[in-house]
Formats: sequence, structure tokens, C-alpha cells
Amino acid sequence: MATVSRSVTRADRAVADAFARLGVATAHEAQGRRGLLAPYLNPIYPGAAIAGTAVTVSVPPGDNWMIHVAVEQCQEGDVLVVAPTSRCDDGYFGELLATALRARGVRGLVIEAGCRDVRELTRMEFPVWSRCVSAAGTVKETLGDVNVPLVCAGQLITPGDVVVADDDGVVVVPRADADTVLAASRARAEREEASRQRYAAGELSLDVSHMRERLAEKGLRYVD
Amino acid sequence: MATVSRSVTRADRAVADAFARLGVATAHEAQGRRGLLAPYLNPIYPGAAIAGTAVTVSVPPGDNWMIHVAVEQCQEGDVLVVAPTSRCDDGYFGELLATALRARGVRGLVIEAGCRDVRELTRMEFPVWSRCVSAAGTVKETLGDVNVPLVCAGQLITPGDVVVADDDGVVVVPRADADTVLAASRARAEREEASRQRYAAGELSLDVSHMRERLAEKGLRYVD
Amino acid sequence: MATVSRSVTRADRAVADAFARLGVATAHEAQGRRGLLAPYLNPIYPGAAIAGTAVTVSVPPGDNWMIHVAVEQCQEGDVLVVAPTSRCDDGYFGELLATALRARGVRGLVIEAGCRDVRELTRMEFPVWSRCVSAAGTVKETLGDVNVPLVCAGQLITPGDVVVADDDGVVVVPRADADTVLAASRARAEREEASRQRYAAGELSLDVSHMRERLAEKGLRYVD
Amino acid sequence: MATVSRSVTRADRAVADAFARLGVATAHEAQGRRGLLAPYLNPIYPGAAIAGTAVTVSVPPGDNWMIHVAVEQCQEGDVLVVAPTSRCDDGYFGELLATALRARGVRGLVIEAGCRDVRELTRMEFPVWSRCVSAAGTVKETLGDVNVPLVCAGQLITPGDVVVADDDGVVVVPRADADTVLAASRARAEREEASRQRYAAGELSLDVSHMRERLAEKGLRYVD
Amino acid sequence: MATVSRSVTRADRAVADAFARLGVATAHEAQGRRGLLAPYLNPIYPGAAIAGTAVTVSVPPGDNWMIHVAVEQCQEGDVLVVAPTSRCDDGYFGELLATALRARGVRGLVIEAGCRDVRELTRMEFPVWSRCVSAAGTVKETLGDVNVPLVCAGQLITPGDVVVADDDGVVVVPRADADTVLAASRARAEREEASRQRYAAGELSLDVSHMRERLAEKGLRYVD
Amino acid sequence: MATVSRSVTRADRAVADAFARLGVATAHEAQGRRGLLAPYLNPIYPGAAIAGTAVTVSVPPGDNWMIHVAVEQCQEGDVLVVAPTSRCDDGYFGELLATALRARGVRGLVIEAGCRDVRELTRMEFPVWSRCVSAAGTVKETLGDVNVPLVCAGQLITPGDVVVADDDGVVVVPRADADTVLAASRARAEREEASRQRYAAGELSLDVSHMRERLAEKGLRYVD
Repeated sequence: MATVSRSVTRADRAVADAFARLGVATAHEAQGRRGLLAPYLNPIYPGAAIAGTAVTVSVPPGDNWMIHVAVEQCQEGDVLVVAPTSRCDDGYFGELLATALRARGVRGLVIEAGCRDVRELTRMEFPVWSRCVSAAGTVKETLGDVNVPLVCAGQLITPGDVVVADDDGVVVVPRADADTVLAASRARAEREEASRQRYAAGELSLDVSHMRERLAEKGLRYVD
Repeated sequence: MATVSRSVTRADRAVADAFARLGVATAHEAQGRRGLLAPYLNPIYPGAAIAGTAVTVSVPPGDNWMIHVAVEQCQEGDVLVVAPTSRCDDGYFGELLATALRARGVRGLVIEAGCRDVRELTRMEFPVWSRCVSAAGTVKETLGDVNVPLVCAGQLITPGDVVVADDDGVVVVPRADADTVLAASRARAEREEASRQRYAAGELSLDVSHMRERLAEKGLRYVD
Repeated sequence: MATVSRSVTRADRAVADAFARLGVATAHEAQGRRGLLAPYLNPIYPGAAIAGTAVTVSVPPGDNWMIHVAVEQCQEGDVLVVAPTSRCDDGYFGELLATALRARGVRGLVIEAGCRDVRELTRMEFPVWSRCVSAAGTVKETLGDVNVPLVCAGQLITPGDVVVADDDGVVVVPRADADTVLAASRARAEREEASRQRYAAGELSLDVSHMRERLAEKGLRYVD
Repeated sequence: MATVSRSVTRADRAVADAFARLGVATAHEAQGRRGLLAPYLNPIYPGAAIAGTAVTVSVPPGDNWMIHVAVEQCQEGDVLVVAPTSRCDDGYFGELLATALRARGVRGLVIEAGCRDVRELTRMEFPVWSRCVSAAGTVKETLGDVNVPLVCAGQLITPGDVVVADDDGVVVVPRADADTVLAASRARAEREEASRQRYAAGELSLDVSHMRERLAEKGLRYVD
Repeated sequence: MATVSRSVTRADRAVADAFARLGVATAHEAQGRRGLLAPYLNPIYPGAAIAGTAVTVSVPPGDNWMIHVAVEQCQEGDVLVVAPTSRCDDGYFGELLATALRARGVRGLVIEAGCRDVRELTRMEFPVWSRCVSAAGTVKETLGDVNVPLVCAGQLITPGDVVVADDDGVVVVPRADADTVLAASRARAEREEASRQRYAAGELSLDVSHMRERLAEKGLRYVD
Repeated sequence: MATVSRSVTRADRAVADAFARLGVATAHEAQGRRGLLAPYLNPIYPGAAIAGTAVTVSVPPGDNWMIHVAVEQCQEGDVLVVAPTSRCDDGYFGELLATALRARGVRGLVIEAGCRDVRELTRMEFPVWSRCVSAAGTVKETLGDVNVPLVCAGQLITPGDVVVADDDGVVVVPRADADTVLAASRARAEREEASRQRYAAGELSLDVSHMRERLAEKGLRYVD
């Protein structure tokens, strides 16, 4: 029953791209605190921030054959999302696959398993968010699926969804919600910029956000 | 029963500050190997080294309201210490709160929970030691306490205690012991400097510290 | 029964050194996916890549005395390998011991326990792969063994074996296999260089490695 | 945006019930190794084996208010499935809620968080599969959702799906697949019964399943 | 600086004893959700429920000498509380020490480390709450302290405090609060008994606790 | 390079069997605190205690084919020891394989991976020590090795070694040491029986083992 779906309806490219600057924390808040992948996914080097449309790969434990299959399905602006069918910490992905993905314009990889060749990936600035780093390689024996809906690090990801990743983690925005969440993210970022200037000038959020009265109502007591 | 204590007796500022250069490992040794917070607290970026006086915040799971309340209680040279009443890995803290704390001269944050906006915090060089990184935000619904003694990462911290943090972790020095521990730390650092020069010249600690006889007494046997 | 073995038959120096450039992932593949230490060992700073011959130390929990004893047994080109007899996350190792090891030409440390003085070790570029970072110091009370075969992070390491370590982890190559595995590693690296160029030019591994037929045989189905 | 959906289309009761005897491992195999919840969910006491239709609850960290709301939506033969919006190990559930659920005929609870009153729950034989045991109670301050599709321990669960749980873990069977998977499970159980008798009589699976030839083809070598 | 304090002011025996029937969850709630030890402490067998006054022992990693010292300080009705100065999972405690403690009337052991002889301890019904089970023994080389305030599994415990432990975990009640918390626990248990009967009869907590109005105010929406 | 070794030199059967009554903690002490497998291996039900000679199996992640191959190599009194070549938590083993092993007189299984059919295994009293419980099945695609030396849960195990397992964990005794360690274990058990009777009568280990003087020398101070 292993299948590769070639027809993915991707979120609008410009909308997907715009999330990279806004970041994971803002996108997560803006869609009602949903869609955050589990915090055990970590970037292999600091400072990367990407957004793109998901191409998904479901892989057996210890077998990366389907990632090779998935490369052909990738387009400029995609993010590859890989999840094993049962927990496996092997290093499914290294610089050769990264070279192939880069040649097709892929932005980065999100994988609920291990990654290797970290030094080379850092040099070529191909970002990866992974469960762990492991030099343990994998075989090419068993099939899986490309472009099926899958659960990665606790979240359902459908091919074509927007995936945003930075130092804070990874969040998925369903394709149908991308426009709305982008608008909400921008509004939130603007409000935060306004707050940031007032805080930098020494104002307190207690005053900026009028919290004092509600705190008193809840029973907060100041003692000397 | 939620309270904010406004009257904290802080350790002497110059004494607290002097710990930053000596570092966590030295301070920990110098006070008899006590006061080290659990090693699951990690710095969000490498290279930071701070010391300051503790302002403490006890927070409910998933609720950062009391951190906003605590900002007002902070002074130049403080370190904010936050612990949830039960385990929670949400991102309680980000760049907006850091901006507000920086405006008051706070040195950094120690939190037994999650932190977010890591890229921005790295750029503004506001150091945080946290249990994890998570973009998951928090609500503002339930009260907690500011400036109460609390257990953070396994150590009792009383408001006004000295908190030292660097790449090796975080250590608390009780306010009453700060003078003594500082003197002991300095003496230790000087002894280590002397040892360092002898080791760099190729001398062995077996000889520098006269260990050979005691090793032989304990029964150490050399074989070829 | 504590012993220090002074007569270690080391792998050939030039052979051991040559592994540093090839890296952990390549060496691990080249020896049939054996010898990889558990992925809970992490480098204390990114970018280091070393290879050398193992000097081994078996230590009691919370006691680093035998590391001092082991320094004397080290030679130019060695890698120190330390494992506690039961789990302990204390900081067994810091910059003073690193200074002593560097004076003898040791390449780095692999330890299934904690390490401290991370900032200083980073500055002096003395690489360490450890289970955790902890400022908690250790005592010098109980003996252990130097240059005995031991299990470190799940792998058997015999004194004189080749140890390779980089951002991907740590792998051990038994002394007797070092020549063969080096040759196999070099062959593999050359093959990968050829593939890399074809992938960078946009070719797919499906074609480069003739996978399409075998995928079809296994039953892979493409759908639109 | 907190909602309670009152109209759940449940899987057929007799079909759902029939899974309890077949068990989690068989159901998981029979539906193509899909649907297994993460193995960090454990039964609070050994020996329980249930199956039923899912009523789902999405809860904030540290807040069990919505479980009280969900009780009213439960029917005879349901299994309650609870997941927090971010990781929280508090004890959301105890004997009082179990008493209320039992009065409505609920078979048990699956919760990706903590449970308490373990002794009482064991006495009343109300089975719970939870991430941990914790006496830490929760508040009733913030809303969540009842009967929405949610991800629990890494699997998507839709209200009305079949949930099967025993000492081996928890598996979800989508409502639409329940008939097919039940038939496949029964067929599998019968085949296993036949194998069991042959194995008990001393026959080898190498012979019963004709594996010897394929092993030889793959290159297995016997040495003395 | 190793000391044994012989003069512990214990909580009233009858008060301490009375907590055993009320249990950990009730005591924890009744003292405002404080004092719960971390949930990584587990009972070595199910069904035990004890309460008593704390005798505390601070031990070095891998060394149980001070537990032998502590036995002499124990009285009828005490609970021994042991914490290592740095993480160690060795088996500090087994049936011989349990035999000695039972001869003095000690109720059980709480230890933030490993325990062994689990089968024998289960047979003699001497309950232990530990971080793990490990057959790894310990030495008798280094001193520690008996009857000092210490942090065990994240909570400050002072000698003479009440320690309550059952299948739900372990909670500490400060000696000074024992009377008040006992009264609050009893009141809570009575209220819960009343609720239990109403729930068993099929009433809903939504009605029993008048939650419907507040849920509506917060914005809960029912959909069909 | 997959091989099955048919010629295993087993430890003497009577010697191996005799360890079951003595237990893991005693055997571990008696051989100088060596050979203990990592404490993350747990029995699937309490109370089992076995000893036997090791038949070893090295398996790929997610593939249990070689366990079927290994059954044929087992004899009355063996213990099967299984380790995957990289971490995998799948359920490699269930009641069918247990039925086959029991027919050959195998005492139990030690596996650094997952186990399933826990209820059935408990009923038939076939003991398993595993890393976790998981209903996730495995495939039969890739070869491994039977009766090679392997590292399981951190310890080197050679075919024919004695494996002892009970509620405290698992320990390996090398075949060559079995006689000596058995004698030392028996001597230790006798000494402990003598101590047990004196402790039960209320004597203190401080006196029985003459510790008071050495404690005083080390500087232990009693305060009132």
C-alpha cells in the first residue's frame, strides 16, 4: 500500500514565505496556540529561520529509502517533513540528501528522528530540525509513503501545509488557514513592536496592559 | 494567598557582581559543593556569564502573569528566578519581557520551564538558563507569588541570595554566606592559576599534589 | 584490584590520525555500522573533529582521582575515554585536567558523565564529548582502573583502539581493523564525492543509483 | 472558541466491544501497524483490557475543568480520551471523576498527562492509561474543547473512533475502518492460535512459516 | 563538617499517623497544592500507604554509609528520607537495612536514588519510594549528614516534618502546619465523600458544583 | 556477514541454575560490582527470578526475524538475550515466540527493546526484562547475528555466559568466572543471613560492623 502522491495543493508561495520573518512563536499565538510540534525537535545549528510548504514522508524505522523517493516530489519553497512509523533515532539524513534537496530549492528538513553530517550541513547552511544527532546510518529495504497526512512530533501535517521553523521550534499552519493566520501574525507583530518600545523606555506591562485592577480583584496582596 | 513581597534584603551588590568572573564551578566548590541547580537547566546561547541577586517568582503551570508582576520588583543587578508549581515546559518568557527587564538593569533569567524568542534574546544578549525552548505561549489567569523562598531545579532560593550562572550551569549562594564564599572562591581561583601554569609546563598532578603515596597505600598497582 | 596498565599497543598513529578528516558517519558505515557510541554523548562546542588512540579510565561515581592517574599514561595523539562504574552526572573534568592533557598532546576527551569549565575549554579549543555539563565537582577517594577494556556509552573500547569524534558523535574502530576500515572509509568518501557533484547538478539518486526498478518491484505506486 | 460537540457519530457498539478480547497488539497488526499511541502511556494497574468509542477532551495545562464538562457527553461503552495543549504532568483525574464516569457506563480513561487516586481507582477497577502518576491537582479556570479531533500521544483521534487499551498500550481504530479491522483481527487471532499449538508441540517457526530458504537467499551462514 | 543531629522536634505522632488514611492527593490539596515531591519517585510495589515523621540523610553519590548511621536516630513512627548530593541511581538500600529500620518501628523509606532487593522488601512489606530500582551496590567511604534540612525530589524537608506516601507519590507537610493541614484534609475528605455519593447516583459535577453559569460566561459554546 | 554460531560453550548448568536463588544484587556484589545491565531494563511483571546461559541475538531496528532463527539454537536452561543495532522501542517479542522458547526449556528473555502480549506472558509466567512495552510489531526483512558477543544495556555478553535476572535487574557473569562468583555469592548470602538475624533483634550495623571508630576518625560529629 506504499504510495507517492504527485498532486499536492500547496499553500500560496508568497503567504508561506512571509511567515519566516514573523517566526514560530508569533505564528503559534496567532492561530490560537495550536500546531506546535513537540519541543524535542531541535535545530542542528542556531540562527536559522525558514518557512515553506510541506512535502511529507512516512518512513519505516532505520530505513531512509523513501526520502530518496521524496526528493523528486519537491519544489522551490518546500520544507521536507519526515516521521518514522515507530521511534528510531538513527541518522536518516546527511549532506548528500541535503545537496539534492538544495538543488531543487528546498528550504530545510523537519524530522522526528536523527540527522548526521552536522558539520557539513552547518557549512552549507542547510537547516534541519531533528529529534537527535546520530551517525548511525539507515538501509534502503522497505517502502513507506510520500505526501500522505502524517503525525510528526505530535502534530498532524497535511502535504501543502505551511511549516515554519526557527530557534524556538516548529509550527504547522494548515493550508486553509494560512491567509488568516498570516494577517493575525502581522497584527500581533505590530502590537508587539509598539509594546517593545514602551517597555524599552521603562514602562511596565502592569500599566501598559492595565493589569493592576484585575490582579487586585483576584486577590493579589503586596507586603513590605 | 498570593503575595508580592516588596522588601527584599539583597546581598551586597559588589560582592554579588564579583562572582561573575569566578564562575559557577569555582563558587560551587568554594561553598562545599552545595547550591548547584540541576543540570537540566541550559543556557539558550553559549558564552554568557552573570551573577546577581535573586528576585523569585512562583508561577502556575502555563501562566506567566506573575512574571509581569515581578518586573516591577526588580532592580539593577538582579537575576530573575522562576519556578512553576508543577512541571510545565511552555515558553513563559520571550523578548518583550526581556526588554522590560533590561530597562531595569536585570542581568538575566533562570527558569525551570521553557523560554522562547531565542534568536531575539541572543541578538540582544539577554541570557536565559531554562529547562527547554518552546514557542508555546502562556495565559494570564491565575496568581502566584513574588519574592518567596522557592525550590528551583532542586535548590532552595531565597530572595536576595546570590545567583551565579554560566555555561556550566547555575549555583545559588545564600546571602549570609556571600562574603565567605567569595573569599574562598578567590583563594581557590588563585591556587588553580598556580596549578595551571605547572600543568601547562608538563608537570603531573600526581607530583604537584603529592598523590603517589596515597594511591600506593590504597593499593594501586602498575602493570606492564 | 585497581590497576594501571602501562603497556598499551596503540593503533598506527598515521592511520588513527587519518580518520579525523573522514569523520564519524563515514567510519561507522565503512565498518559495517558497528562501534557507534550512544547518541547521548554530545560535543561541548560545535565544529571539533578529532581522531586518536584510546587511553581508557574506569572511575567510581563522583570520583575523578583515576583521571589524574591516567594523564601520565597519555601520549601525543591519544584520546582519553572515561566511563563511571554506575551512572553519575557530576563534572569529572575541567580546564586544569585539559591543560595537563594538552601538554602531553592528547586530542580530546570522551566521557560518559559530566564535564565543566565549558567556556574555558571552548576558548582553549580542547574538545570534549560528554553525557552532560555539570559544575558539580568530584572527590579523590576511591581507586579505579586505567587502560582496561571498558564499555563506554554502550560500546566496548580496548586501550589502543581508534576513537573518532565529531559533531555527529563518537565511533570506536578496533585496533586490528583500523587499516581495513580506513581504506573502506576512503573509498566510501570518494564515491560520495562523485554522487555529491551529480546531486548538486540536479540529478536524482533514484536515477544515479538505479532505484526505480527495485521500488516498482516492491510495489511502490504513484498517484495523481 | 471553546466548543462542546454534542453530536458524535460513534462506531457500532458491538464492533467496538469485540476488540477488547482481541487486544491492542492484534488490532494494531490487523490495521497495517497504524494507530498505536506512544508507549509512554502506561496502565495504572496490570491486567485491564477494554475497548470503546472515543469521547475526546482538549485541556489547558494544569486545568481539568473540561473533563467535568465532558462527563455529560459520555454514554455507555465510551472511552474518555484527554490531551493537554502543552505538556503537563499534573494529576487531572481521580476517583471522583471515575465515579461519575462509571455511573454513565464509561469503560476507562486514556490521558496524555497525570492521574491520581491510584489505589482507589485500582480498588474500583476503573482502568486508566496515563503518562504518569501525580498527586498534583489542577484548577478550573480556563476552557478547552470536547469532541474535537485531537492528537493524543502522537495519534490523531476523532470522536467516535474505537479505542482499544490493555497492558500493551493503546491503539485507535478509525470509525470507518472498524468493521474491516475487526474482521482482520479475528482472522489474525485464529491464525495465531494455530501457530501457538504447533509451537507448543516443539515445531519451529523456521519450518512452520517456511523461512529457511529465504534466509539462505539473503546470505545467512551457519558456523560451528 | 559532617554532622548527626540527635535532637529532632517531631510533629505530633497521632497527627502524623492520621495522614496515612487521608492520602497524598488530599493532603497536597489541603495545604494549597504545596509540598509534593517530584513524580519520578515511585513505590516499589503497589498498595502501600504510610505517614510519619522525617529523619533525613544527605548522602554522597554511590555511598550509603550515612544510612547506617541514621538508623540509630530513628524512632517508632519515623519515615527515612534520603537524598544524594548529586544524581546517582545506585541501589543504596536493601533488605538488611530494612530489617534494621523495621526493628526500630520505621514506616518506610523515601529516597531520590536507587533501591534493591525489591522482592524481599515486597515480601516483608517494607515500602520504599525511589527514583529507580538498581542492583548496583554502594561503598562506605565518605561522610554525609543526618537530620539536616535537605531538598529531596524538589521539595525542602526539615527533620520532624510529616511525610505522607502512597501510590500517588510523596508529600511533605511542615511540622508547624501539621494540625491545620490535617483538619483541612479531613474537611476535604468529608466533602469528597458527599460528592462521591451524588456522582455515583448519576448527578453531574456541572450541577453539583454549579459550574454551568460560569462556563457560559467564559464563552463555552455547545454545538450539535 | 550475518552468521549463526551453533557451537556455544555454555557455563555449567548446575552452576548457572544456582544463581537464581541468590539473586542479582548478591551476584553483582560478589563479582566486584561488575556486569550489571543498565537499570532501564524492567521486568514485565513482579516476582520472577531466573538464571541461565546466554544465547545472544543482534537484531536490526524494527526487525525480529533473527529471534525466530535463534529459537532453534536454544537449549533447556538458556536465557535469550536480544539487542538491536540501534535504538528501537518496537515490540519484538510476544506470546507466540514465548511459546516456542518454553517448548525448548528457555528460562526467559532479556531484550534492550520493546515487548508485547504482556498479559499473556504474565499468565504463562514467561518472564521478560525489556526497555519498554510496545504493541508495535516488527518485520522480517533483514538479517542479523545469533551467538555473537554483543553489548546489551551497556554490558558485554558472550554466548554461554551466565545471565541472572530478578526484580532488581539483570547481571551477567562471564562463563569463566561462574564458579568463583557462585562461591563468593554463597559466602556473601551466608554473612548477610547472620547480619539479618542480629538486625532483626535490634542490633545496629554501627556495632555489628564496628563502624563507630572509623566514622569518628573521618570527623563525624554528633550534635544535640
